[in-house]
Amino acid sequence: MSDADQADRESGTVFMPRYDAQGLVIGIAMDAQSREVLMVAFMDAEAVARTRETGLAHFHSRSRGKLWLKGESSGHFLRVQEIRVDCDQDALVMMVTPEGPACHTGARSCFYRRIAGDGLERIEI
Amino acid sequence: MSDADQADRESGTVFMPRYDAQGLVIGIAMDAQSREVLMVAFMDAEAVARTRETGLAHFHSRSRGKLWLKGESSGHFLRVQEIRVDCDQDALVMMVTPEGPACHTGARSCFYRRIAGDGLERIEI
Repeated sequence: MSDADQADRESGTVFMPRYDAQGLVIGIAMDAQSREVLMVAFMDAEAVARTRETGLAHFHSRSRGKLWLKGESSGHFLRVQEIRVDCDQDALVMMVTPEGPACHTGARSCFYRRIAGDGLERIEI
Repeated sequence: MSDADQADRESGTVFMPRYDAQGLVIGIAMDAQSREVLMVAFMDAEAVARTRETGLAHFHSRSRGKLWLKGESSGHFLRVQEIRVDCDQDALVMMVTPEGPACHTGARSCFYRRIAGDGLERIEI
């Protein structure tokens, strides 16, 4: 990446995601109200485009190798209020309103444990 | 990953990060007070260990291929209050107290723009 490209990406008003070698950026979903991080996954160009078109968070499933509409099986969609972009445009934070638990375990957020001593403990979120 | 491994990872109290093929997990730093996402980068086992030992956020720089103590050149360290782990243990959220702007551009957070129409606009964070 040239210095000019980097300057454009950092200070410009053009959305130009910097996809990695696998064609992915990081996508973080944050509850716009509780301000908890709900989940994080990867997004490819198709997932970014579909998210913008529909207002529902889409990701790219690396294990299944395809587009993944969050909530497609559970009905627990994430309604996207705003998409924030980081300095080098390789990560997005989506401010969302969740339509149910974000985690497939039934927890509101996937981040339901914290490191405590040598292990993990459950937290209330 | 076997079903047993997956169940252990999801419901257990053992911290066993699931590093990807490159030996990395996603590390998100969130301001414990303002509850803004400050930055996101990758962490390898060494970065995770050093973060736990020192209480200062460390990452793995993919471009430089080495351990990166956030703030090592700027002095803007991120003091880690708590480390949260997601269901499949391939991402961490660090609740931090920043000792200065988290972004190398001088912004408090790297996520200082949002998508607006076809472009980006600056936001106050």
